Amino acid sequence: MRNENRLRWWIWFIVLLATLFFLGFIIGWFAKQTHENTASNGVSSKYLREFLDEMQPNQIREYLRKFTRLPHLAGTEQNLKYAEEIKKDWQDFGLDSVEMAPYDVLLSYPNTSQPNYISIVDQFGNEVFNTSLAEPVPQGYEDVSNIVPPYSAFSAKGQPEGDLVYVNYGRTEDFFQLEREMNISATGKIVIVRYGKIFRGNKVKNAVLAGAKGIIMFSDPADYWASGVQLYPDGWNLPGGGVQRGNVLNLNGAGDPLTPGYPAKEYTHRFSVEDGVGLPKIPVHPIGFDDAIHLNMGGQIPPNSWKGSLNVSYRIGPGFTHEFKSQKVRMNIHTNNKVTRIYNVIGRIRGALEPDRYVILGGHRDAWVFGGIDPMSGAAVVHEIVRSAGRLLSEGWRPRRTIIFASWDAEEFGLLGSTEWAEDNAKLLQERAVAYINADSAIEGTYTLRVDCTPSLHTLVYEVTKKIDSPEEGEEGLSLYESWHKRDNWTQDRDAPRISKLSSGSDFEAYFIRLGIAAGRARYTKNKKTELYSSYPLYHSVYETFEIVEKFYDPSFRRLKAVSQVRGGLIFLLADSQLLPLDANQYADSLRKYTQSIAQLAQRHPAQMEMYEVSFGEFTTATLPLSCGRCKACSNISICDLICLPVRIMNDQLMYLERTFIDPLGLPGRPFYRHVIFAPSSHNKYAGESFPGIYDALFDIENSADPEKAWEEVKRQISIAAFTVHAAAMTLTPPA
Amino acid sequence: MRNENRLRWWIWFIVLLATLFFLGFIIGWFAKQTHENTASNGVSSKYLREFLDEMQPNQIREYLRKFTRLPHLAGTEQNLKYAEEIKKDWQDFGLDSVEMAPYDVLLSYPNTSQPNYISIVDQFGNEVFNTSLAEPVPQGYEDVSNIVPPYSAFSAKGQPEGDLVYVNYGRTEDFFQLEREMNISATGKIVIVRYGKIFRGNKVKNAVLAGAKGIIMFSDPADYWASGVQLYPDGWNLPGGGVQRGNVLNLNGAGDPLTPGYPAKEYTHRFSVEDGVGLPKIPVHPIGFDDAIHLNMGGQIPPNSWKGSLNVSYRIGPGFTHEFKSQKVRMNIHTNNKVTRIYNVIGRIRGALEPDRYVILGGHRDAWVFGGIDPMSGAAVVHEIVRSAGRLLSEGWRPRRTIIFASWDAEEFGLLGSTEWAEDNAKLLQERAVAYINADSAIEGTYTLRVDCTPSLHTLVYEVTKKIDSPEEGEEGLSLYESWHKRDNWTQDRDAPRISKLSSGSDFEAYFIRLGIAAGRARYTKNKKTELYSSYPLYHSVYETFEIVEKFYDPSFRRLKAVSQVRGGLIFLLADSQLLPLDANQYADSLRKYTQSIAQLAQRHPAQMEMYEVSFGEFTTATLPLSCGRCKACSNISICDLICLPVRIMNDQLMYLERTFIDPLGLPGRPFYRHVIFAPSSHNKYAGESFPGIYDALFDIENSADPEKAWEEVKRQISIAAFTVHAAAMTLTPPA
Repeated sequence: MRNENRLRWWIWFIVLLATLFFLGFIIGWFAKQTHENTASNGVSSKYLREFLDEMQPNQIREYLRKFTRLPHLAGTEQNLKYAEEIKKDWQDFGLDSVEMAPYDVLLSYPNTSQPNYISIVDQFGNEVFNTSLAEPVPQGYEDVSNIVPPYSAFSAKGQPEGDLVYVNYGRTEDFFQLEREMNISATGKIVIVRYGKIFRGNKVKNAVLAGAKGIIMFSDPADYWASGVQLYPDGWNLPGGGVQRGNVLNLNGAGDPLTPGYPAKEYTHRFSVEDGVGLPKIPVHPIGFDDAIHLNMGGQIPPNSWKGSLNVSYRIGPGFTHEFKSQKVRMNIHTNNKVTRIYNVIGRIRGALEPDRYVILGGHRDAWVFGGIDPMSGAAVVHEIVRSAGRLLSEGWRPRRTIIFASWDAEEFGLLGSTEWAEDNAKLLQERAVAYINADSAIEGTYTLRVDCTPSLHTLVYEVTKKIDSPEEGEEGLSLYESWHKRDNWTQDRDAPRISKLSSGSDFEAYFIRLGIAAGRARYTKNKKTELYSSYPLYHSVYETFEIVEKFYDPSFRRLKAVSQVRGGLIFLLADSQLLPLDANQYADSLRKYTQSIAQLAQRHPAQMEMYEVSFGEFTTATLPLSCGRCKACSNISICDLICLPVRIMNDQLMYLERTFIDPLGLPGRPFYRHVIFAPSSHNKYAGESFPGIYDALFDIENSADPEKAWEEVKRQISIAAFTVHAAAMTLTPPA
Repeated sequence: MRNENRLRWWIWFIVLLATLFFLGFIIGWFAKQTHENTASNGVSSKYLREFLDEMQPNQIREYLRKFTRLPHLAGTEQNLKYAEEIKKDWQDFGLDSVEMAPYDVLLSYPNTSQPNYISIVDQFGNEVFNTSLAEPVPQGYEDVSNIVPPYSAFSAKGQPEGDLVYVNYGRTEDFFQLEREMNISATGKIVIVRYGKIFRGNKVKNAVLAGAKGIIMFSDPADYWASGVQLYPDGWNLPGGGVQRGNVLNLNGAGDPLTPGYPAKEYTHRFSVEDGVGLPKIPVHPIGFDDAIHLNMGGQIPPNSWKGSLNVSYRIGPGFTHEFKSQKVRMNIHTNNKVTRIYNVIGRIRGALEPDRYVILGGHRDAWVFGGIDPMSGAAVVHEIVRSAGRLLSEGWRPRRTIIFASWDAEEFGLLGSTEWAEDNAKLLQERAVAYINADSAIEGTYTLRVDCTPSLHTLVYEVTKKIDSPEEGEEGLSLYESWHKRDNWTQDRDAPRISKLSSGSDFEAYFIRLGIAAGRARYTKNKKTELYSSYPLYHSVYETFEIVEKFYDPSFRRLKAVSQVRGGLIFLLADSQLLPLDANQYADSLRKYTQSIAQLAQRHPAQMEMYEVSFGEFTTATLPLSCGRCKACSNISICDLICLPVRIMNDQLMYLERTFIDPLGLPGRPFYRHVIFAPSSHNKYAGESFPGIYDALFDIENSADPEKAWEEVKRQISIAAFTVHAAAMTLTPPA
């Protein structure tokens, strides 16, 4: 009896102890998880802080200096050398792997023995004036070779001769005005337009559509001078000899013109150049305003909105003033297309728990010349982010998901490096990519932060910028968020810093508009309300040097550090948060606004809306149910996490939200622009439109010979938009 | 001291006990998992056995009887009634949810006041012979109304009159032979072809391309009689008054002709019928051979391969024999297209652990008349599978993943119900669908099993059929696998039962060829080596009744039970296995074979291959690295499972493997056929080709006016195939 009792007691005792231990273990487990969750959604905020604090202005300065000494145009030896240096540095910084990803794409270079220029020729065919063959080399770079002279990449070859017609910015509406109001035809003429407002490739497309046989683009001080700023080298305004280089393709996201849809590998089938995508059929050339003033144009006086600020009388043409009536313009363009090897550098940090989920930070490395701003201010920032991440790795940190860093090549030739890699990895990315953060130029002004991103990233951007210090002098103690908020409030809609739609024109295109991966970009910018010039004055000229950043844009390099922290912070939280920091409710809100605004746009034609029975009814209700019920239901993450699958399920829903806006049929006539909510309009590549299909259909109404058919297309686009938003909402409801 | 020692001893003792307990717990946990894994990859084999054993021949007989009493053409009231009954039954069986999914699609019906028929007219325009307006009604069904007379759905309306030309089966090669060897033009003629060999829609397309103004199709006993079999009702051969109905569209996977790419909902934009997809521009009509023998065709005697087994002299035409030279043929076709509401029934069992992963079993419900075989033999089987699954649910079982059961509508009108639902749910399915098993007709012969499926399902099909008893008399103790193996061995390639490629012509199309979801189908079939007739003789005639199954095809209903177990077993293991039973290595093997065979096909033109520098080099090496390294690395599932994410990661790789073969650009000219490895060739919808892009390009070579361009297209297709296989291989490597 006594022994038995004792045994029983012992058994109870042991069981009790073991149970207690197990309970303790479980509670400890939960407690630990819960603790981590209180800060930053399950991510270790200690590491995030360390990561942000690691980034140093001086490092960024050093990297910018290092990678802007020599011209490094895509396809050149120097750009490969920089790729190799970046690869080596990233390896040294401690990335798990770094590799080159080469592609053979169509590039375009001036003929080294036959320079490009524009002439004025007299009635005997003699060249009485020629535009300059190169920009004056900036101080300190006199011994540098391989500076490519200003040219329009992918221009057709040829020597067309004829009368000039001036068409303002070369927009669709400018050509309409020329043809319909001024009754001037551009057919058979050489068109001259000023740079600005829209992507130069669209200017060229419009000129071709108008029947022009050549197009000249010039930079007008009205668009490339900031007031009160000196000319380079005493300031950052464009001198009269400076010229904007750039490609003049109409790719609409196709990437390499010869291999649309597929990576340009050795074995890939290539179209002939005649069948290539987006190559202009006429010669194109850019000039500076020192050259432009020599063109003594005659003909009508244009409206004031067509006049720039050169000290000449702006005239439409065709042809020169009476005095020079017999003179013509001749373009001499000998630029060659050439399939050339380019090199992306791809570095990775393997994810600890979800290695099959990718967060990507990518920006280009190739530059027209030195790339002081574009792109090396961005590349230097990426370099510093990689270094800081490597530092964290060495301290034992490893992100939950895989981070991919990319140094893209040949962005300037049509986003080629990034698009070919996206095509090469499309299937992986469709299944695995969480988000893409773009890292082109990190600074274009000295005023405040600028962010363009998909709505699901808005909340994260605010969260990150609150953790970063303002880089502005006299704002000690203010966060970047506060500094940004007071400079650029989102007045009408909400009291928060303004975030814009992602448009086009940089390497996020294939990831966002083709593959539907949540994407964003951040940089330091000018004051849009007061600084009305296009882009930044020295854009794509030889004067984009290290010095303009060091002397004018960011002498302390603290603005670049802040951009570094924004881009890095986004990547960190996307890669390391347990629950993906993508906000479906914010997407729902934004969709409601876009829906209203596109419906308002259509309401400009109320009579036709009625006649053709156009209704936005189903479309405007379509966005309402879009909200992520599951996210709320499962807000107690720690318990979910122990079970593990629910978090993954929820994250999949969030990750795929952006993907649900992709229509495999693409936008009309643009098979590689597949995002139903965001894409550039067909008329302006730089303007990201919401519901681009409807927008373009509405735009075309005014131009259509068959309004019934045009309105039918509007209705079709509305129905596609309604379906797409409905379908997206379905993916956010509980899975079964 | 003593107390301290005692305390220390106690502490050690407690720690030891707790540790032991925890160890024991962990070991127990692992042991349990490991034990389950030995049978069926982590699935409870007890439940699988119970599920298979639950299925009963008598239940299947009852369901087949219940749903074949009345005609239930798509879009009719009766087919909606059956939908409602199925919905109610599935609810009663215990599914978690059952709902209707309606769409408004373009259907096509004969005009009830103006019947369709073919006449022979004399020189005065008098109709001297008319084909029959309906089939003689089968015994026992005399009082049934709403039997739709034989017609070609979606035929154009019209009354073309002219001379007949006979073009054998109406294949591309038949028209080539007619025009090139016999020098007879079909332009402006009415073409007559026999049913069989290829899909009737392709016959119509070929007739249109040849310039015919009408096409008549007839069933020849050579193609619709089995030897030694009596005519209905004494056997299952086609009587002379029997006619095959069917649609004559060329949809290429578009679904509803008016809403290609989008679900046919109320708010969806519809094309006009003129702009609809795949609608033939000429009248089409089917007849039986009792009518066909009245057409006294004259002209050339065809080669023997063009002769059927009717007791008439087969002639090519054009026109009748000398005696009837003045007579013409007139078609009288008044069929109407009409947007009509159709109803899918969708039932669900919510997955316990991965509710966001879907395994789908779908088959159609609509029938041309009674649907004794097509589709109700399949629908009865699905009904029994749902009942059995419900039984398991009531015993506490719940699958790991969600199972979706579908009763599709309007399959006979171009796979409309299944395609619209796929379009409606495309985004969900792209992200979540694991596999699709098709459930059309479950029996078409009495010989053995027939399985067509994607290579990754081969292994699972073998595993499942080994667990099922042979339904054949005298084979007690033999498994279905053994019975099947001895009747249809995969001789040349391997010692296993033959499995074929998935082709086209049933509801899996949108899931497999458009969305890239692993798919398969299983039914009981004839002996392909000895039974050479097309399909089964009574196919799509009024004589497809309950009786032909009960009296001839499966009196014991054990064959249907076996099919039920195959389809059900596949669904069960796909939904409940921890590691998805999809075999990537088998896909790699199959790809190697397909690669070789398509390269061999090209080798028929060795001189041109050399001239145009066509190389299969990169393409044939492309398949080699495709194997799922991770599956092997992680074969000890129990440990992976405890960590949980690795299993999900691996399963995602397996699930998405099929998706990686989808090219969003689609096959040339066929935007909804997007599977680079499997799709019907453009020339025969019923023949599933491997590498259809290359296959079609090679086919077109012989027909091309510009061989250089044609070979360029071959090379382009090879490069796309190589890229696709490369990319698929990438998705199977470890994720980072």
